[in-house]
Amino acid sequence: MNTKFMLDESRIPKQWYNIIPDMPGPLHPVVNPQTLKPVTPEDMSAIFPMSLIEQEMSTERWIDIPEDVREKYRLWRPAPLFRARRLEQALQTPAKIYYKYEGVSPAGSHKPNSAIPQAYYNKQAGIRRLATETGAGQWGSSLSLACSMFGLECTIYMVKVSCTQKPYRKSMMQLWGATVIPSPSEFTNAGRSILAHDPNNLGSLGIAISEAVEDAATHDDTNYALGSVLNHVCLHQTVIGLEAKEQMELAGDYPDVVIACCGGGSNFAGLAFPFLSDRANGKKVRCLAVEPASCPTLTKGVYAFDYGDTAKLAPITMMYTLGHDFMPPGIHAGGLRYHGESALISQLYHAGEIEAKSYKQNACFEGALLFARSEGIVPAPESSHAVRAAIDEAVLAKEEGKEKTILFGLSGHGQLDMMAYDAYLSGALEDFEYPEEMIRQSLERLPKVSF
Amino acid sequence: MNTKFMLDESRIPKQWYNIIPDMPGPLHPVVNPQTLKPVTPEDMSAIFPMSLIEQEMSTERWIDIPEDVREKYRLWRPAPLFRARRLEQALQTPAKIYYKYEGVSPAGSHKPNSAIPQAYYNKQAGIRRLATETGAGQWGSSLSLACSMFGLECTIYMVKVSCTQKPYRKSMMQLWGATVIPSPSEFTNAGRSILAHDPNNLGSLGIAISEAVEDAATHDDTNYALGSVLNHVCLHQTVIGLEAKEQMELAGDYPDVVIACCGGGSNFAGLAFPFLSDRANGKKVRCLAVEPASCPTLTKGVYAFDYGDTAKLAPITMMYTLGHDFMPPGIHAGGLRYHGESALISQLYHAGEIEAKSYKQNACFEGALLFARSEGIVPAPESSHAVRAAIDEAVLAKEEGKEKTILFGLSGHGQLDMMAYDAYLSGALEDFEYPEEMIRQSLERLPKVSF
Repeated sequence: MNTKFMLDESRIPKQWYNIIPDMPGPLHPVVNPQTLKPVTPEDMSAIFPMSLIEQEMSTERWIDIPEDVREKYRLWRPAPLFRARRLEQALQTPAKIYYKYEGVSPAGSHKPNSAIPQAYYNKQAGIRRLATETGAGQWGSSLSLACSMFGLECTIYMVKVSCTQKPYRKSMMQLWGATVIPSPSEFTNAGRSILAHDPNNLGSLGIAISEAVEDAATHDDTNYALGSVLNHVCLHQTVIGLEAKEQMELAGDYPDVVIACCGGGSNFAGLAFPFLSDRANGKKVRCLAVEPASCPTLTKGVYAFDYGDTAKLAPITMMYTLGHDFMPPGIHAGGLRYHGESALISQLYHAGEIEAKSYKQNACFEGALLFARSEGIVPAPESSHAVRAAIDEAVLAKEEGKEKTILFGLSGHGQLDMMAYDAYLSGALEDFEYPEEMIRQSLERLPKVSF
Repeated sequence: MNTKFMLDESRIPKQWYNIIPDMPGPLHPVVNPQTLKPVTPEDMSAIFPMSLIEQEMSTERWIDIPEDVREKYRLWRPAPLFRARRLEQALQTPAKIYYKYEGVSPAGSHKPNSAIPQAYYNKQAGIRRLATETGAGQWGSSLSLACSMFGLECTIYMVKVSCTQKPYRKSMMQLWGATVIPSPSEFTNAGRSILAHDPNNLGSLGIAISEAVEDAATHDDTNYALGSVLNHVCLHQTVIGLEAKEQMELAGDYPDVVIACCGGGSNFAGLAFPFLSDRANGKKVRCLAVEPASCPTLTKGVYAFDYGDTAKLAPITMMYTLGHDFMPPGIHAGGLRYHGESALISQLYHAGEIEAKSYKQNACFEGALLFARSEGIVPAPESSHAVRAAIDEAVLAKEEGKEKTILFGLSGHGQLDMMAYDAYLSGALEDFEYPEEMIRQSLERLPKVSF
């Protein structure tokens, strides 16, 4: 009676799955925020290497993973897939619950799956340094790790308030050799102009993005790296789902529903896209994206052209959005606090190909606690959204007396998020409603773009 | 060119290796601290189940691992073994460096290897609750996890100052359902008598042991569990070395030297004992125990009968000791701050079967940093001692121009020890010399026991 499905390191995927050729219709253009015209590869080459720009737009279904990237993946990939037998017992459900666990990476989440190839391609292109932003610190620590492995320098603009609230993630980045700059900073025009008006500004992800992009755009030897949202990031994350498909086969099973938490979208894309591609072979798998009720991009946002960042420096894309100046409440799932959504996922959701659902954070932590006490692993607050949705699917199966196979993504562990669990256990965790009025106001400020 | 050597879950060992029949001579008796006579199984039955007491004294070379324990082990076992190719490159060494990584357990260290069977055997014996002590929290969190898996209650006396210094480990224990009591407490005579004299006492591991043992001894439905030192704990940990031997075979290699950090000794025992047993087959493997220079039990202690705890409640054993009232300085490798040493390891060291070496903490963190930047994984401060010794062996191989195969135990990850890395990176980490005068004074207070 197996509970863990492992693959040999030779089974690390040799190619990423690119969903673009299988999308329901052509992609919408990405728009330059200055010119309001479609972005060209030349626009992007100031901050990205050409190989990643090509991946961003490629219509090849399969893209080779460089051997040097696979070699780094080997440190923790293939990641394990588990059957959650003790959770099933605790729920007394007829459903079978599987989870793909990405917390085994050195950074503790799925983020290195894209940080490693991004560092690799930039190194290949002769870049000396990468700049990025980080909020909760999952992406920043993953990029630091990747840069240390390829001998790149790494500059991380970390939201100032997070430097204080998440000091250990900051330490991890420094440990791996990165320079961490509290944002807003004096190092960029974007930072200085904010500090001039408000010297005590605590920062935001939008401001940090602006600083990192400016840093990259104004230094020839420096590029920018983004941890989610973009097509090439979703592409890199498909190693999750590709492995999971092989492992489900080992288990002699196939999911009726695939569940993953969804912020910018790369985690959901990574697990779900390879399963979505099976529909062409007649498989009837449902794919469910789970988001926080406090930042309900898919479930309460609109499908429109919007800026990727607050400062309107990032490209405008057609996506589900809550408005580029929407400020989500300070929930503990920092990785899910983004106003927008990956263009690919947005288009799939708009076409009715995937489902979405939102949860308040107490419900998620309740599920995470049950999971930790039965399965042992402490879920990251982000991942707890998928845990909760999987539990609800299993409970529904019980009520309906149906067999059902559930696969969810456990995208990271929560060992660095104990403060959040403390708050939950002491009853001090706020259950933010999605601020409907704030969303409405933000949506009034969408850019005027039409094609 | 493989870098990760995995075993299928069917290869989780089916038996633990018991070194007792292979020891160089008979074991010394364990002495009751009240009567100063050899401990009987009845003495121990107030706080341990009979199955563990039998394991403590068994002369069977192989002891079956219950299927229910193997089923729990499956969550993270077999643990991976890696070839540290990037570290080898960084050191430009001809040596091959392998490491067995135990940080993949839900608690982040090797400790659950014994917590799981201890909870199992107590559950089998009809026990309702386990009591234990914890300092840095690795053992307490592991026992909480194990108890949650077997439906046992868990009471943890946590050194009061650690509750403040390591709040996240406390949260992990609570998350897994344990009751955490800052020690000294009002719940035991041992605690109350200390608080009567000193209401602000910050606690020590010795006091916490006394409280947990008293709790277990005075409640029929409650037993005590210890996380290291005892024979049965060393026994359970041999899954580490047994797997590592299989994995080294997969790698087509065999270690010239096996290195592990050594506090109470169960981590070292777990990795090294199965390799030591190969000497009967003519293998020439060296085994090196690494300890902190601030608590140099093997390298600066004496081989004598001594108490296992400060309060003289725990049995007296023949061991290397710095004296039961020796208070090691507050180094960050909390798991290595124990005045004594496993009786088995002590006897092996005394017989010249194994080697020992000590390092100051800055040297260990320096090694850990190099390791993290090349291999990605952040070592626990305890494990950093083994990392450092492995690096020195590899550097020596380079100087001597010799090929050499090094295997070391990476017993846990350091993601919850970022404060320590911060201190190292900012140059604020003190390099305690071993306090020779303190040791001398403590050794003057050894119990008078002779057989």
